[in-house]
Amino acid sequence: MSSPGLSSPTPPCAPEDVRRVACVGAGVIGGGWVAHFLARGYDVTAWDPAPDAEQKLRRLVDAAWPALTQLGLAEGASPDRLTVTATLQEAVADAQFVQESAPEKLDLKRDLLRQLDAAAPAGVVIASSTSGYPMTDMQTEAADPGRLVVGHPFNPPYLIPLVEVVGGERTSADAVAWSSRFYEVAGKSVITMDREVPGFIANRLQEALWREALHMVANGEATVREIDDSITEGPGLRWAFMGPMLTFALAGGEGGMAHMLDHFGPSLKSPWTRLEAPELDKKLYDAVVAGCDDAADGRTIADLVAERDQGVIDVLRATGRLRTQGEAK
Amino acid sequence: MSSPGLSSPTPPCAPEDVRRVACVGAGVIGGGWVAHFLARGYDVTAWDPAPDAEQKLRRLVDAAWPALTQLGLAEGASPDRLTVTATLQEAVADAQFVQESAPEKLDLKRDLLRQLDAAAPAGVVIASSTSGYPMTDMQTEAADPGRLVVGHPFNPPYLIPLVEVVGGERTSADAVAWSSRFYEVAGKSVITMDREVPGFIANRLQEALWREALHMVANGEATVREIDDSITEGPGLRWAFMGPMLTFALAGGEGGMAHMLDHFGPSLKSPWTRLEAPELDKKLYDAVVAGCDDAADGRTIADLVAERDQGVIDVLRATGRLRTQGEAK
Repeated sequence: MSSPGLSSPTPPCAPEDVRRVACVGAGVIGGGWVAHFLARGYDVTAWDPAPDAEQKLRRLVDAAWPALTQLGLAEGASPDRLTVTATLQEAVADAQFVQESAPEKLDLKRDLLRQLDAAAPAGVVIASSTSGYPMTDMQTEAADPGRLVVGHPFNPPYLIPLVEVVGGERTSADAVAWSSRFYEVAGKSVITMDREVPGFIANRLQEALWREALHMVANGEATVREIDDSITEGPGLRWAFMGPMLTFALAGGEGGMAHMLDHFGPSLKSPWTRLEAPELDKKLYDAVVAGCDDAADGRTIADLVAERDQGVIDVLRATGRLRTQGEAK
Repeated sequence: MSSPGLSSPTPPCAPEDVRRVACVGAGVIGGGWVAHFLARGYDVTAWDPAPDAEQKLRRLVDAAWPALTQLGLAEGASPDRLTVTATLQEAVADAQFVQESAPEKLDLKRDLLRQLDAAAPAGVVIASSTSGYPMTDMQTEAADPGRLVVGHPFNPPYLIPLVEVVGGERTSADAVAWSSRFYEVAGKSVITMDREVPGFIANRLQEALWREALHMVANGEATVREIDDSITEGPGLRWAFMGPMLTFALAGGEGGMAHMLDHFGPSLKSPWTRLEAPELDKKLYDAVVAGCDDAADGRTIADLVAERDQGVIDVLRATGRLRTQGEAK
């Protein structure tokens, strides 16, 4: 989506040299970003228009700090390196990277990004935590839209590694590459998308699951508790370390994904969810099988089965759920 | 769904007294059940019509045994307590519980359940591993449909605790209750459903996610690897120990699920997945909020946040993914 031809001032420093990060919006997500950047040893300035924002933010950081300490703090990391400013302009005046985490309202985001662009030093990349708006729709008011990217985290940003990075039509390719590298340096796990898709990747997947869950509750088919238990005692145990595609491939036995699609492909027509399935034509079949081969990265089915088994055991042990005979609830 | 009024012979022993289990169908799922029951100390008989079935089954059990040993074997548990029989009738002749795991073909399941019902001792409960057929549709040919239940496991059945238990219209309530208790005694985590829903619970949820993933691959929006990474580095880390509903509640900050629905409810209208959302009316809103309160079971939002944080750290540590500053990929 991003345009290599658009000229935008170069970021004033390399991703590896960033020391000062500004977080604008300090609710659950913005505050989580603050905690993450502090733990990684950055100086953080934060601004939020809510009257009790500073108090809530410092409480959030304090609550997260024991977890962050267990994860391992960067040298010199401290909650004391947080400065809450009175204005947006002060927050970003000296920043080398800006993370925006305002409420999900398009007009608000547009105007805020315009203000951030006006106030931040030239070339500094400004990333939005938006959970769904395409940057193309948000960058309309900014004087330099080239430095505006989406950097979408997961809650809580100080623990869940994933950040989805994607530019809008007017974002420079340099800003996308710079921010992907910056997040990696800052300890995140980055997926850089080459096109804008509403909801990005992980949110589309979890949103499909969430909507099906809401339908089940609405129809009295399952309770909230049953829905949660069905995941934590079931497929969720695998998804912590092996994604849905590769784990599905293992349902195909020694034949892997191809056998799985042969075997379970017809069930795509079953009314197992309200979501209509795509046609499983040869092109999709081949893409899924080849994609699994790529993701397996040389690991055989037997390797993957051993890895999955060990992973499930490790996760069960880590979460205190090793079961032995007779331990019925 | 099950009818308390239907009379069916009583199971010949209590769930706690079962010693001999028959597994009919010995592919990935059936073989996984064999491994599970062996590890839990049962005598297991197995039958599968495939010519190389015994060899494959013994290979699967051998491959699973190190994992099962780590999980903790029941006293006297041994792969030597597996007998592969030449006929279906021999497999079930002495069984105190029967687990059917044949391919997902309705006609085949119907006929197989008829044969199992004819061959198994009176009253012995026969459970089907079907991943989607309602028992009402499968129990049509059996002389005693009352003892036929669905006991739907997740792959691999020897590691993933969840079993979804549900009867058909002609299943006795006693058979449902007996099998739920039996699975618990045998070390599984049981959700007993009171009505038949195509795909049960967890499969509907993971099928929604799977179909959205297939659409994304079909449209070139994400690769298989990106889809998997987006889960394992993102929401999957939470789902190993806290379900999607409760984790979503935490996105609402100190306001919990109610605040989350106020904040993100409108995004149900966004084109974030191909799955249409239900109308978030007051009834659904209240059901979700009350369901979360029930699932939270007295834990405050702060308790849940602390639990989630510790869980994610434990899972990251268990799967070798603690990140520290500068460890960029």
